[in-house]
Amino acid sequence: MRTARSFSLGELVDCLGGELRGSREQRIVQIAPLESAGPEHISFLAREALRDALSASRAGAVIVAPGAAVEGRAHIVAPNPYAYFIRVAALLNPDPEPEGSVHASAFVHAEARVAASAEIGPFVSVDRGACIGERVRLGAGCRIGAHAAIGDDSRLHANVCVYAHCVIGMRAVINAGAIVGSDGFGGALDHGRWIKMPHIGRVLIGDDVEIGANTTIDRGAMADTVICDGVKLDNQIQVGHNVYIGAHTTIAGCTGIAGSTRIGAHCVIGGAARFTGHLELAERVHVSAGTFVTRSIDKPGRYSGVYPMSDHRRWLKSAARVRRLGEAGSPPRGDSGTRQEDDDNAH
Amino acid sequence: MRTARSFSLGELVDCLGGELRGSREQRIVQIAPLESAGPEHISFLAREALRDALSASRAGAVIVAPGAAVEGRAHIVAPNPYAYFIRVAALLNPDPEPEGSVHASAFVHAEARVAASAEIGPFVSVDRGACIGERVRLGAGCRIGAHAAIGDDSRLHANVCVYAHCVIGMRAVINAGAIVGSDGFGGALDHGRWIKMPHIGRVLIGDDVEIGANTTIDRGAMADTVICDGVKLDNQIQVGHNVYIGAHTTIAGCTGIAGSTRIGAHCVIGGAARFTGHLELAERVHVSAGTFVTRSIDKPGRYSGVYPMSDHRRWLKSAARVRRLGEAGSPPRGDSGTRQEDDDNAH
Amino acid sequence: MRTARSFSLGELVDCLGGELRGSREQRIVQIAPLESAGPEHISFLAREALRDALSASRAGAVIVAPGAAVEGRAHIVAPNPYAYFIRVAALLNPDPEPEGSVHASAFVHAEARVAASAEIGPFVSVDRGACIGERVRLGAGCRIGAHAAIGDDSRLHANVCVYAHCVIGMRAVINAGAIVGSDGFGGALDHGRWIKMPHIGRVLIGDDVEIGANTTIDRGAMADTVICDGVKLDNQIQVGHNVYIGAHTTIAGCTGIAGSTRIGAHCVIGGAARFTGHLELAERVHVSAGTFVTRSIDKPGRYSGVYPMSDHRRWLKSAARVRRLGEAGSPPRGDSGTRQEDDDNAH
Repeated sequence: MRTARSFSLGELVDCLGGELRGSREQRIVQIAPLESAGPEHISFLAREALRDALSASRAGAVIVAPGAAVEGRAHIVAPNPYAYFIRVAALLNPDPEPEGSVHASAFVHAEARVAASAEIGPFVSVDRGACIGERVRLGAGCRIGAHAAIGDDSRLHANVCVYAHCVIGMRAVINAGAIVGSDGFGGALDHGRWIKMPHIGRVLIGDDVEIGANTTIDRGAMADTVICDGVKLDNQIQVGHNVYIGAHTTIAGCTGIAGSTRIGAHCVIGGAARFTGHLELAERVHVSAGTFVTRSIDKPGRYSGVYPMSDHRRWLKSAARVRRLGEAGSPPRGDSGTRQEDDDNAH
Repeated sequence: MRTARSFSLGELVDCLGGELRGSREQRIVQIAPLESAGPEHISFLAREALRDALSASRAGAVIVAPGAAVEGRAHIVAPNPYAYFIRVAALLNPDPEPEGSVHASAFVHAEARVAASAEIGPFVSVDRGACIGERVRLGAGCRIGAHAAIGDDSRLHANVCVYAHCVIGMRAVINAGAIVGSDGFGGALDHGRWIKMPHIGRVLIGDDVEIGANTTIDRGAMADTVICDGVKLDNQIQVGHNVYIGAHTTIAGCTGIAGSTRIGAHCVIGGAARFTGHLELAERVHVSAGTFVTRSIDKPGRYSGVYPMSDHRRWLKSAARVRRLGEAGSPPRGDSGTRQEDDDNAH
Repeated sequence: MRTARSFSLGELVDCLGGELRGSREQRIVQIAPLESAGPEHISFLAREALRDALSASRAGAVIVAPGAAVEGRAHIVAPNPYAYFIRVAALLNPDPEPEGSVHASAFVHAEARVAASAEIGPFVSVDRGACIGERVRLGAGCRIGAHAAIGDDSRLHANVCVYAHCVIGMRAVINAGAIVGSDGFGGALDHGRWIKMPHIGRVLIGDDVEIGANTTIDRGAMADTVICDGVKLDNQIQVGHNVYIGAHTTIAGCTGIAGSTRIGAHCVIGGAARFTGHLELAERVHVSAGTFVTRSIDKPGRYSGVYPMSDHRRWLKSAARVRRLGEAGSPPRGDSGTRQEDDDNAH
């Protein structure tokens, strides 16, 4: 565990706002969930349903929403208790400041530019023409390709690879093993053999983007792959060439997005979702985890499509019947045919 | 191929037990499957159904279960022939001993501790306060974060990343590109923007754990992510923050486990399975490959849920009808409604 | 963006064939899609349906199929316009020549062989007995295991890991973070614990193979894992031990193939497809994206199996009914039972 700084409750509300009910002097050394918190911890009440957990908790202080009655315990009232809690967590557990040094073992090309305030870890390579911004931290073994650019205050964990010419904005957090700018997939079939399309586009990543461990983002074929400001990508996501992801969209782990699909802003994509290529998704679309998206979505809302789990014997039956639904003679399309088809199905 | 040591059949049973029927002097140089084995190889009879393959085989010796009749060929009788075979394979193909040296190109922080018997490969970095146990082997390019610990006799292949403060037990085998301790995903939505939860938990990994290539295991948000003794994880698995995986559970490749899900001991999880977050699975649950697990499972048994494959035209029909099942007017839940719904469905 | 070389239209047809209709002197500096092309660009007409886009385009020249009428614009007639376009792209955007040098920071074992024309990047490690062919380019941080071989003219991007004894053919392109030769998964259960099979097989990769970023290919247990000539693998694909992939098969991203499955030549596998182990697929099989393949396929054709996406409320209904299909009393198999089962289903 990191060693946290300690704050008094008074210092917390001075930094973060909110209304304190309790002693300004009470000291908090760390965050904790209600069930394991002790007197030196601050916790939060996510929803009223957890009130019993709050009663049973030994937490020294708690963050609650306006209107929540708390007795016999210091508390801070804030409109969004979870967001407030995260801000407290960040105050108590700050990232270390970048050291402003290039490790002796790193390789920085003579024609690359590295800000004096940046921290370059062991065995990092920064190729010709690359540009590393102020206070950037590059973990051990990062690979920054020729003419790539990393914006101010970004942090790349160990062994991240950024290919040539790709651009990453400010305050990015990129977890270990992520790949930005790999060649996109596909080419032409010519006499039974595939010939490869040279990919001359880039990956352009906005500000405040997070990228998970071992996630891969392909460069564009001709135009660029674009990830807008505030996008959050979890681990092991695959983003194909020429994909566009709108601002403040969040995508959970193991999702795959085929080439040229465009996802709107403020979308929420569950884990292990899949998108075929060349789709368009509106803003504020919510795709449930595990859903395979095979057509464009032009209206906000929630969309799902996962085969339900059963015990194995029931699934064998259900799957046999689902397969048999494809055998009946009537056509699969046409609203007017519904009745007829279901009749067929019953015989 | 590695060069195997050679053993006589007598030496094998002296090392591993079992009952030898044949000459103690016969030499074995390598393992092989029945169909490609020659006189210098030992093979095994997995089940009686393969007896024809045994008859046709040129294998010099074979491992069989008690009661299996084998004529005209040396054989070893053991209760679990496949396990015995694996033990023979390990005798014939031992991992090289660690060299007890730090490669000249590696970087070990002055405040890290590395056992004298450990072998540290080229371009490895071991950060401040990390602790590397006896006979540990770190492949080229491994990244060991500050205050992380690697238990005795563990082997990390090339380019494995272990984040700060994570703990790996004894005799681990971690394949290339695996990431242990990346930030978990998720945060609070505040005025349309996501703010990131600092992750102060760790990853704690027990003894005798295997981790596949490019698998990722996120650290806990507040408490720790826990992988118990004897767990086997295949390639490209994603383990979310605060997940718990019980002892001796095995999980095949491409599986994703969302945050805070708890999987019991001795479970068998097929490839490309998916788990939503905050589930509880009992011990000895078997999840079929490709199944999406969206609810807790409190009883041992096998659970499945995969859309059956058909030729494309049949699938078009079947899928259209499955989608249409969602259109009828009656409610989706309620046991008493079953008859009514199916009636609706038939019209 | 890379800086392209410029060619005249006359030079293009001299190099690549095709019939030029227009001025041999007109210069082309880059490829571009119809909608963004300017007078200095060449584009192509993929199909007649895009003729309006062609009319509206400012492209200086266009590649078309025989029989396509183009007026008022230079054009090249070629039987496969997209393949021709890719060849133009490659002429205009050549990969840089390998530098024929070993970076000062790289580690090459004294008993490894590296061709004089090869380019070895920063922090690359090449282990004992490995063999690096003519004009090979190894990106920063690549790990080449003992006795591995990389064929002439292959390019490995940053942080690729090739385990010991694996063999890669000529003209391979391997994207960053890919792993070739990791241990396969599985072992024997012995008194409730899993014991690991030592993997003594290799990975053998033919000529002209592409491998995507963070893709993993396991070595064989006893025999080898085999990837034939001309196979194209996208990002984040998992290939299990002893898999065989036939020549010129293409597999899109996030697909997983369990151990010992054999896929024929000239297959097309969509993204996020899944294969259980020990299957056999014929040549020229097309598996749709997202399909779970659980049985062998002995005839060419297209095969599919994905749960259709709906809005969430409809899916809830459809999934409840699909699950209920597993509850009826009749057996799931047997053609003669179809009527009876569907009757049961209607009550």
